[in-house]
Amino acid sequence: MPFSLSSLGERQSPSEITRLMAVALERPDILSLAAGFTDNESLPLEDVSSVVDEIAQEGLAGRSALQYGSNIGREGLRELVANRIEDSDTTKRGTLNREQLYISNGSQQALYLAVQTLCDPGDIILVEQPTYFVFLEILQGLGARPIGIPTTSESEIDLAGLESLLVEAERTGELERIKALYLVSYFANPSGSSVSEATKEGIGKILGGLSSTVAIIEDAAYREIYYEKPFSAKSCLALEPYQGAPVFYTSTLTKPYASGLKVGYAYCTEPLWLAAMLNVKGQQDFGTANFAQTIVERAVKKGYLDRHLNSLRSIYHAKMNTLHEALSGPLESLGWNWKAPEGGLYLWLNSPTGLRTDANSPFHEACIKQGVFYVPGDLCYPDSRICDRIRLSFGVLGEEDLREAARRFVAAAMAMTEPARG
Amino acid sequence: MPFSLSSLGERQSPSEITRLMAVALERPDILSLAAGFTDNESLPLEDVSSVVDEIAQEGLAGRSALQYGSNIGREGLRELVANRIEDSDTTKRGTLNREQLYISNGSQQALYLAVQTLCDPGDIILVEQPTYFVFLEILQGLGARPIGIPTTSESEIDLAGLESLLVEAERTGELERIKALYLVSYFANPSGSSVSEATKEGIGKILGGLSSTVAIIEDAAYREIYYEKPFSAKSCLALEPYQGAPVFYTSTLTKPYASGLKVGYAYCTEPLWLAAMLNVKGQQDFGTANFAQTIVERAVKKGYLDRHLNSLRSIYHAKMNTLHEALSGPLESLGWNWKAPEGGLYLWLNSPTGLRTDANSPFHEACIKQGVFYVPGDLCYPDSRICDRIRLSFGVLGEEDLREAARRFVAAAMAMTEPARG
Repeated sequence: MPFSLSSLGERQSPSEITRLMAVALERPDILSLAAGFTDNESLPLEDVSSVVDEIAQEGLAGRSALQYGSNIGREGLRELVANRIEDSDTTKRGTLNREQLYISNGSQQALYLAVQTLCDPGDIILVEQPTYFVFLEILQGLGARPIGIPTTSESEIDLAGLESLLVEAERTGELERIKALYLVSYFANPSGSSVSEATKEGIGKILGGLSSTVAIIEDAAYREIYYEKPFSAKSCLALEPYQGAPVFYTSTLTKPYASGLKVGYAYCTEPLWLAAMLNVKGQQDFGTANFAQTIVERAVKKGYLDRHLNSLRSIYHAKMNTLHEALSGPLESLGWNWKAPEGGLYLWLNSPTGLRTDANSPFHEACIKQGVFYVPGDLCYPDSRICDRIRLSFGVLGEEDLREAARRFVAAAMAMTEPARG
Repeated sequence: MPFSLSSLGERQSPSEITRLMAVALERPDILSLAAGFTDNESLPLEDVSSVVDEIAQEGLAGRSALQYGSNIGREGLRELVANRIEDSDTTKRGTLNREQLYISNGSQQALYLAVQTLCDPGDIILVEQPTYFVFLEILQGLGARPIGIPTTSESEIDLAGLESLLVEAERTGELERIKALYLVSYFANPSGSSVSEATKEGIGKILGGLSSTVAIIEDAAYREIYYEKPFSAKSCLALEPYQGAPVFYTSTLTKPYASGLKVGYAYCTEPLWLAAMLNVKGQQDFGTANFAQTIVERAVKKGYLDRHLNSLRSIYHAKMNTLHEALSGPLESLGWNWKAPEGGLYLWLNSPTGLRTDANSPFHEACIKQGVFYVPGDLCYPDSRICDRIRLSFGVLGEEDLREAARRFVAAAMAMTEPARG
């Protein structure tokens, strides 16, 4: 009597990153530059507790925060989110249709719903190189295929290359399998870089000229985590070449605030796609936890979120500088290179030519031995495995731990420099 | 350039119940006996606020409640949940493997994951008649087929009928498509009835004798919402015929406490199935909101949940009695019948023969006109549409509103009695 799962069930392979994290957990002395967690000390417990106190004093009206909510999410919160997107895109308030915006169980759920309702097994989503590795896991789990968008020598999206890829796909009949193009467009995980407005417009024009519809999935999770100023590009929602095209835009309210609340959102311009996602969401949870939504709604309304973001920007900027400076002297002389980002939570390192950094590499082993942990960059690529990149996260550790982690990382790099030549 | 969704996306049809709820929302004067929401006035806002205060006073340790958690869920909470299941099943503490239990975004997510990893489109899940209508929506959304388990004249599971159904499926070669049997085993939604231990054992023996493996999905969402005493049957996890068989058991910690927190859990005896569910959960949300889990963990540990359950049992018992008594005199004389339940949130009415109660029936229209709203029972059946049942929920309305809603319902029933003969 064999027990068989669905083809989706059979397709699930354990997440490589989960496996790596488990290894790290067995070594409590390890300093992790891997997890994309957020700064612990600044988590806004006072805000949250004062909001809960306020709710507690409102009697029956407050009590309803502990009741079920609606599937699409709180109306007040959706209004505030729509305002925020409109303000960021310098568009007029009221431009976005509030009924096309839903609150999700983190932006992760929204990404899952978008792919689940769009891709059959074998369908294709174009992704940046590198891209968000959990998005690649979603695709793997749903049987969709990621194909990398060609990159210029400056590691930017190569518009001409993208166009050739699509022309070729049209020729081979594969174009209809390409369902979307996924952009992590602001201070991306893992690269730290952003997609310029010109590039977005270029992509939109290319997609608009195709004989088949390719949607945009824009993941703006880090849009508000800039250090000094917002990245200037508008979202695809507000750009001319995307008007009339299916655009899905998602971000989070809690990653840069209180990640333990897990409240994200998505806006979708295509009514059929939106309706399908909402139906599936109804089956998965019939609405994001109302208590978390209520807390976040009040925190946004009271300006707590913006106040927190202001302070968080300085914190992450300082942490980034600490890690960047602790690494740059010694590593640059060993041939490593990277660019200090202007937002986000990650340094994206390029090892000296020939030095492998994947999970099976001697360098990875040397880091574990030194007591420091990173995300191997190859996990962030769709196909042709590039094995000389590393994602370092500076979100969690304090300044002193960051310096110690950097010291260990440099020690591992120095130990590896000789063998790497061989 | 047509825009096409995935076959899953194309399959989504708007939830009938959502459509009905929207109709009701347009009429704020309507008293709803439809929504399965929980009692508002007793929502434990004081508990939650005192737990949050306590967390707020713990400094950095408390702050971590606002940080991301793990995919499988908090270790402390999983331990407490495992203890609760073991206590309910009068088995020794430590019997359940804590690593086979995960915390979910409500039990709804757990049900979704279980079906998603088990059923391909066209696969079959056997369901009670009636069954939980949102489960039917999950199946519809994933393309799986529900087939009703035969029922005795006492509306109980007909073991001989189940066996014949399975023998016939074996003969026609369809048995391999039957992946699971879904039981809402305690004070069910919508019937209010429970599955006896003898029936569970009978089912287990029948399934154990098949040439193909059929899993059990046991939904115990209402197990703790008994009025006077727990229903005596152990869960399938603890019953002999299920040892070695794939059993999935799910319930919720927040439906009978603070539904706005949305914390459920699932235990799975089959490692491959469990691993697949956890992988998909990692893609959907990489872990249920840590803040909600932390609150619930403390509420369980401090005995708040049990104290609340004790008081909630009296509240629901009283509400059930109020609705039951307000309806029984007038409706029984019109030929309606039902059994007062011993737990749960629903009355399950059987209309006089010939009186249709579905959403398109004159009776449904008469109720809307009177200003009262119910769930048409036909939504709770997998196939052969039984159109003379009604689910009434007494969870939300206060005593006075319940009496008024009953008065309106009776008025509609009286108005329909004549036409129904025609």
